[in-house]
Amino acid sequence: MEKKNKLSALESLFKPKNIVIYNFNQKISFFVEGFKRQGFDLEHLYLISSREDEYSDLKCYKTFDEIPAVTIDLLILSVRRELLIKSLEDILSEKKVKFIHIFTAGTGEFDELGREIEYHIKELLDNYKETRAIGPNCMGLYSPRGKIAYYSSFPIEVGNIGLIFQSGDLHSKMIKFGSKRYGLRFSIGISIGNCVDIQISELLEYFNHDNATDIICVYFEGISPLYKKEGKILFNVLKNMKKPVLFMRGGRTKRGQTAILTHTGALATKSNIWSALYEQTHAIEIPPSLEELIENAYLFSQYIPRVKDKFNNIIFPANKRALVILWSGGFGILATDTLTELGLELPYFKGETLKRLKKIHPIKIGSLSNPLDLPWITHRKEFVELSKAAIDEDINLVIIETDAWRAKDDDRFKGYYNNLLELRAYVESLNKIFIVVLHQYPSESLAEFTNKLIEDKFIVYPTIEAAAKSFLKLYEYGKKAIWFNKESN
Amino acid sequence: MEKKNKLSALESLFKPKNIVIYNFNQKISFFVEGFKRQGFDLEHLYLISSREDEYSDLKCYKTFDEIPAVTIDLLILSVRRELLIKSLEDILSEKKVKFIHIFTAGTGEFDELGREIEYHIKELLDNYKETRAIGPNCMGLYSPRGKIAYYSSFPIEVGNIGLIFQSGDLHSKMIKFGSKRYGLRFSIGISIGNCVDIQISELLEYFNHDNATDIICVYFEGISPLYKKEGKILFNVLKNMKKPVLFMRGGRTKRGQTAILTHTGALATKSNIWSALYEQTHAIEIPPSLEELIENAYLFSQYIPRVKDKFNNIIFPANKRALVILWSGGFGILATDTLTELGLELPYFKGETLKRLKKIHPIKIGSLSNPLDLPWITHRKEFVELSKAAIDEDINLVIIETDAWRAKDDDRFKGYYNNLLELRAYVESLNKIFIVVLHQYPSESLAEFTNKLIEDKFIVYPTIEAAAKSFLKLYEYGKKAIWFNKESN
Repeated sequence: MEKKNKLSALESLFKPKNIVIYNFNQKISFFVEGFKRQGFDLEHLYLISSREDEYSDLKCYKTFDEIPAVTIDLLILSVRRELLIKSLEDILSEKKVKFIHIFTAGTGEFDELGREIEYHIKELLDNYKETRAIGPNCMGLYSPRGKIAYYSSFPIEVGNIGLIFQSGDLHSKMIKFGSKRYGLRFSIGISIGNCVDIQISELLEYFNHDNATDIICVYFEGISPLYKKEGKILFNVLKNMKKPVLFMRGGRTKRGQTAILTHTGALATKSNIWSALYEQTHAIEIPPSLEELIENAYLFSQYIPRVKDKFNNIIFPANKRALVILWSGGFGILATDTLTELGLELPYFKGETLKRLKKIHPIKIGSLSNPLDLPWITHRKEFVELSKAAIDEDINLVIIETDAWRAKDDDRFKGYYNNLLELRAYVESLNKIFIVVLHQYPSESLAEFTNKLIEDKFIVYPTIEAAAKSFLKLYEYGKKAIWFNKESN
Repeated sequence: MEKKNKLSALESLFKPKNIVIYNFNQKISFFVEGFKRQGFDLEHLYLISSREDEYSDLKCYKTFDEIPAVTIDLLILSVRRELLIKSLEDILSEKKVKFIHIFTAGTGEFDELGREIEYHIKELLDNYKETRAIGPNCMGLYSPRGKIAYYSSFPIEVGNIGLIFQSGDLHSKMIKFGSKRYGLRFSIGISIGNCVDIQISELLEYFNHDNATDIICVYFEGISPLYKKEGKILFNVLKNMKKPVLFMRGGRTKRGQTAILTHTGALATKSNIWSALYEQTHAIEIPPSLEELIENAYLFSQYIPRVKDKFNNIIFPANKRALVILWSGGFGILATDTLTELGLELPYFKGETLKRLKKIHPIKIGSLSNPLDLPWITHRKEFVELSKAAIDEDINLVIIETDAWRAKDDDRFKGYYNNLLELRAYVESLNKIFIVVLHQYPSESLAEFTNKLIEDKFIVYPTIEAAAKSFLKLYEYGKKAIWFNKESN
């Protein structure tokens, strides 16, 4: 019960009824712009500033006690680090505050004095059990369900990807690049910083129970020296998750760990712990690349809601065999090498499948082999017939490598596009994965065509390699998840 | 002498005085459009067509003997495979033809009959020593110096990258993606196909002596069964090159080799030969990814002309130590991990360098470490001063990870951009490499800014990983080249 209460308490963090920005100034006006863009009710946004009288039609209160609200759901605290303790004392003695986002940087990641300040914050918060905090040294919250975001560029639509990041900038870039490249949408994103109070494990548990969230991405740098037990807790939480956690760890290398000391000041952990974590828990290791994290989140977030039943059981790909359909022999050979080197298989056509294909293949030049080379006919009905004929139970992934089309309103394009739609529907009805590979270069018509595909919920990657790597993570997670399931039954 | 004559004879292939398209029809009109776009003198372009009377103001001759020219430099032969031998006999008995581009596909890569046709072509050509041929099964030539190209989308400017490709489609995509993404420009590109006559080794020798070419990219699928000695010859030519050859081999995997049989019908070769080739010759192994080939060609083609002296000696990076300058701690840690995992080093600041930096660093928050985190000041003079101070003899690569800027005409942008220009000039004056990493997503202002950087000859990569991988290939080639040099002295 206690846990459930704790989790539901977090609702006020993600859907605050009111917000105070403490020590508001122009430099942090992006918060206000973000709330506005999301449609947060500005009547319940209170700015406190000793210098400013108003900002963009919003009155600035001189002191905290002038604010009409009795209980504050979320307070954003932005003062110099020297003033942190004093400000917190003033705030907490004045009103009930449920959540404090400590925006201030230059604490634990900076120097000995900073670490002392963090220690005192923790001490202080221990006396106010009803007040929780995120930070310091973090950008804070993006929660479209609560109509809050710290940047106005973040999408207002709610999605199924949860984010917990120990870097504000990577958090922002994940949302920006992810939404603009692939149309990613997020349930909640938290830039969590140095973790003096709320820990990553707690947020993971919240996401685990959150129906809107299908997949969680974590950017991890380390554990606060104030919460040395968090390592063990995190391990257990990750073990008991019911959802995949794409886990990108800054400081995989020793050289990277020294870089972390100056960023969040977190404790480094031993590398053998990590192999155990990736083996025994729902965490999936992502290499140190924001691009790869985004690419993986893309496939997981598109795939899971499609194959999840009402008991939240997910059907995962049972093998890693792929069919590649393309328009060029050269790309086909590169695709074959790339997929094979990454550990996928491209089965040859045989038995009934080969018979079916031979019967209907209209062109004498070109081969009846996987990759299936179907030039010139992508806009004709035969394209779908042939592709369907090539898909048998042996296959779990269908990749179609295509070229830029001018998305015009002519019959040729319509034929081609309807073929893609029909083929995807067929592949997905068999619970297989359908991916379009579309190499990117600066071109208006290519950009337009890519956008159309993404809007229509196609999964579109710029290279075979990116597609294959994401598929493999999904496949490997599936194997692990099935194994965990067996164990717990 | 013979070799030199043979090489200079190839000039007519790349700068033909006249061209005949044999069996012209609408389907191959792209050739005409390509020649037009390059500015080839259309008075010396002759179309032969039994059906058409004219195409786009160009007269179509009914038969080959109607053509006024006595000697033909280049003839493009596009007939059904069944007519290949007969057509060649007619052509060769009628006029002197220096080069024939056999466009026809469906020969050696297709079936036994196709292989027989290739055998007969070779037999026939052996009787006409003055006539050479490329193909069959190839797109042919792109030679901006000779104002010829088979697609009108190819750039008209001459560059320093030579291409020899056994896939027409990959050849076209290399030019298209490379020119549009990175502004790559080419000396000559040849889609060579099944190699019944002119071999890859011969073209490599031509490029080796061609002053305009600094670097050669090869896409290789295999050796024609008609020229079994080509393997040995190719090895020797690659050994004696004076230029780097980026060598991408289709069929690195066994599974990929079976795919090749249906593409060029070439002989597969044993894999231990390949490790010897990459070790003992000027060939640099590129994984099966057109993206990586383009990214490598980009760095090599920008770097070499800048550091080449009048004796064609190239100064290569002496170590693989990098300085990273950036605007975000999170990206800095990922960059550190990525570079370290790939085998680069990020030295710490020490000694005089550290003293210099401490003296002038204006901000108290942020660290004096590599990656050097310089937020907020990228448009100020201190940015250049600090960056310069951080570069010492220990460093060979400077990577600056930056963000999209609206390339406006305001002081902030000008300050920032001048800083980049000044910093690059400084880094390059020390014969070090300066790379800008700019993550890509759909955005007009980002596209505009990226274009500006590329136009101004900055080396711009979309990820740290791509930048590092290309740098490493350059570094490794440099080590090999220095070693070869020592051996030959």
